[in-house]
Amino acid sequence: MKRSVIDILDLSTEEIESLIATAQDIIARPAEYAHACAGKKLATLFFEPSTRTRLSFEAAMYELGGNVLSVTDAATSSASKGESVADTARTVSCYADIIAMRHPKEGAALVAANAASIPVINAGDGGHCHPTQTMADLLTIRREKGAFSGLTIGLCGDLKFGRTVHSLINAMARYPDNKFVLISPEELKLPSYVKKDVLQEKGIPYEQTTSLEAALPQLDVLYMTRVQRERFFNEEDYLRLKDSYILDAAKLKAAKGDLCVMHPLPRVNEIATDVDADPRACYFKQVLNGKYMRMALILKLLKEAAQ
Amino acid sequence: MKRSVIDILDLSTEEIESLIATAQDIIARPAEYAHACAGKKLATLFFEPSTRTRLSFEAAMYELGGNVLSVTDAATSSASKGESVADTARTVSCYADIIAMRHPKEGAALVAANAASIPVINAGDGGHCHPTQTMADLLTIRREKGAFSGLTIGLCGDLKFGRTVHSLINAMARYPDNKFVLISPEELKLPSYVKKDVLQEKGIPYEQTTSLEAALPQLDVLYMTRVQRERFFNEEDYLRLKDSYILDAAKLKAAKGDLCVMHPLPRVNEIATDVDADPRACYFKQVLNGKYMRMALILKLLKEAAQ
Amino acid sequence: MKRSVIDILDLSTEEIESLIATAQDIIARPAEYAHACAGKKLATLFFEPSTRTRLSFEAAMYELGGNVLSVTDAATSSASKGESVADTARTVSCYADIIAMRHPKEGAALVAANAASIPVINAGDGGHCHPTQTMADLLTIRREKGAFSGLTIGLCGDLKFGRTVHSLINAMARYPDNKFVLISPEELKLPSYVKKDVLQEKGIPYEQTTSLEAALPQLDVLYMTRVQRERFFNEEDYLRLKDSYILDAAKLKAAKGDLCVMHPLPRVNEIATDVDADPRACYFKQVLNGKYMRMALILKLLKEAAQ
Repeated sequence: MKRSVIDILDLSTEEIESLIATAQDIIARPAEYAHACAGKKLATLFFEPSTRTRLSFEAAMYELGGNVLSVTDAATSSASKGESVADTARTVSCYADIIAMRHPKEGAALVAANAASIPVINAGDGGHCHPTQTMADLLTIRREKGAFSGLTIGLCGDLKFGRTVHSLINAMARYPDNKFVLISPEELKLPSYVKKDVLQEKGIPYEQTTSLEAALPQLDVLYMTRVQRERFFNEEDYLRLKDSYILDAAKLKAAKGDLCVMHPLPRVNEIATDVDADPRACYFKQVLNGKYMRMALILKLLKEAAQ
Repeated sequence: MKRSVIDILDLSTEEIESLIATAQDIIARPAEYAHACAGKKLATLFFEPSTRTRLSFEAAMYELGGNVLSVTDAATSSASKGESVADTARTVSCYADIIAMRHPKEGAALVAANAASIPVINAGDGGHCHPTQTMADLLTIRREKGAFSGLTIGLCGDLKFGRTVHSLINAMARYPDNKFVLISPEELKLPSYVKKDVLQEKGIPYEQTTSLEAALPQLDVLYMTRVQRERFFNEEDYLRLKDSYILDAAKLKAAKGDLCVMHPLPRVNEIATDVDADPRACYFKQVLNGKYMRMALILKLLKEAAQ
Repeated sequence: MKRSVIDILDLSTEEIESLIATAQDIIARPAEYAHACAGKKLATLFFEPSTRTRLSFEAAMYELGGNVLSVTDAATSSASKGESVADTARTVSCYADIIAMRHPKEGAALVAANAASIPVINAGDGGHCHPTQTMADLLTIRREKGAFSGLTIGLCGDLKFGRTVHSLINAMARYPDNKFVLISPEELKLPSYVKKDVLQEKGIPYEQTTSLEAALPQLDVLYMTRVQRERFFNEEDYLRLKDSYILDAAKLKAAKGDLCVMHPLPRVNEIATDVDADPRACYFKQVLNGKYMRMALILKLLKEAAQ
């Protein structure tokens, strides 16, 4: 039965567990999976550039023994001839076995999933969802902290527009005994609908602060985010705020010895490079974990589609 | 002996039969072909974007077990340094075993074929030829209607500039007992040289009309085409004409129960989406058939080149 | 032990010998190498377009049985979000086993090599180095002339900015008994630092001339170069000089019967097409040799990285 993943909440906590188990088995025994998708094709259908995400999906498919149809210019080709996303998805269904799609418009992945006869994985639709990034985050937390519970999780930077932060809160809110520390300037605070609908609704403890240094000592996980120039209406605000929440080796001295520092990448300067060699720096591990979780998800969806 | 395919008429009717037989065998027994081109490389050399065509060739090569060298930006790379198409073709001959080439200029594929030491398949050269699209059309007609004879074939929309329409007329004019119904506005009528040199020359019956609804009841095949904005000198003419020949579920009620509705895609709005679920809608089948015919052609040309 | 190749001089003459031996074995017994890199991935990370170089690396990897992650738009994707080359290299290290990187800035490949955890091959960094082009040149000289010694080597055209010329001089200066003939207009003469630091330092004989015809009869090798429009400050100088040093069939009559004519390609009009059929024309052989040397280098670096 064909099935698509548009939002991280499309996957139950049981399914997340199962995907993590598969990813860990892939890490332990990669050779067992080297031909798992032989003869299958992944189409990476990107309507806006995101080389990092595209490569992660393509590397995942190759490590499963499959092949890749790569479309980096979807917006300037079919779409420029006036074709709908639905028709593009239906056409690509004739060529590939599974689609990873990136699109600047919210909801585009869902439209594609409804039209396609093969599974569609949302690889980012505007400021909306990017479930495989959250899967990468979850595997990283599990591998570094051993559990999804009992954690004090700091989220720092752009909490207003940061898609990955909202998804991670949604995902972690399904596990008990966690606490969130929301660290941001006033202008980039977590939207009240997230606080209300997710944190307050579920009775999850959280605190808000504008000081990274004050928050740091109590954290088990620190999720840093990029402050994107394109989110700001004027250049002045961007320049003033982008450097406000920079983590460096000096600040890190006040943190726990087993803190897990995460970042969805690319970073600009939110994390100084003098942090990179610290064993608590986990952001490049996140990159690797993202590949393994994408492998697990591709395997799962192709298996379900064949049933 | 190396051989290229630039025009659909480069292939005899016997060769078309043989390619159709191969395509049907591929459909019936795909596993038999899954490694047929192992170790071989197809270069898709695209001097203008055509993602749909490129993916069809690449999917075809992967389903034959081969690999793909993909050049989507041929125009902005080598050509920008002043390199000739002939030199590009000669260079790519050092890297690949077969080339599928798309170019905005008529005749470019022939220039490449003459220079290359490997087979070249024309994947569209300007408004000129696009033989593998016609091959997709032919396989669709054969699979849907069972024969290439005794058919009343409607061609609707832009018959003046529509490359696929001219090629299909050329291809079908080689089979007996067919009749063409040419449905278009005055401004986009089939050029008189096609009528004279092909239809009249061979004594093939045809009629011209401006009314899709009047023509519909008698048709066995209806080939819809896109009215391309870039073909018009002014926007007004485009807007007035583009919606003139739209097929929808209501109009389709007057058609035969076994009508075969075709379209080379992408469509803009020439066929309403309420037609998609009708069993007579064959345009997504055409997409699949295009892949199978490209597989058959790649196989044939690589086999001949090896002899 | 991971190792990168940024400059042709990173490879000792013993290593060049070994790479040439591997390349010649690949030419003799390609089937032996068809699965040598099975399960491995090459990332072609191109921050500026160079389709010819990219395809050569990708064809090389496919002929070794490996896979390819292709990034043709590196400059417009990650970099546009402000990511450093070092972070890009570190991220790609999570996806691939080896990187071939092209970048318009001198030194970029070295920065990537220092950050990456996998081998990096410099596929051209600005006007600086392009070691695999020189490797292609060396294999061509070896196959055509049988040795790297006792040769009179003419270098013609843009000797001032021509990166490939400087690298070839550096590479050939390590072998005894060669003589260089430097053929160029005054404006495009070999920079004095190359003459002084390489040719004079090592006591290698050379002569300078502005006449291709005068130089031609004594040459064993003639290396033609493209005069690039982008090197000139004004259009007039470009137009006056670009046609100054054109080799054609008429001029070639005065040359030795076993002259080896080379060109790094793409050519504009430095070599007339009437030379192409002459057995002394070796520039398309260079293209093939480039592929074989890249295969040899990929094999070597992956083998060393695994140790």
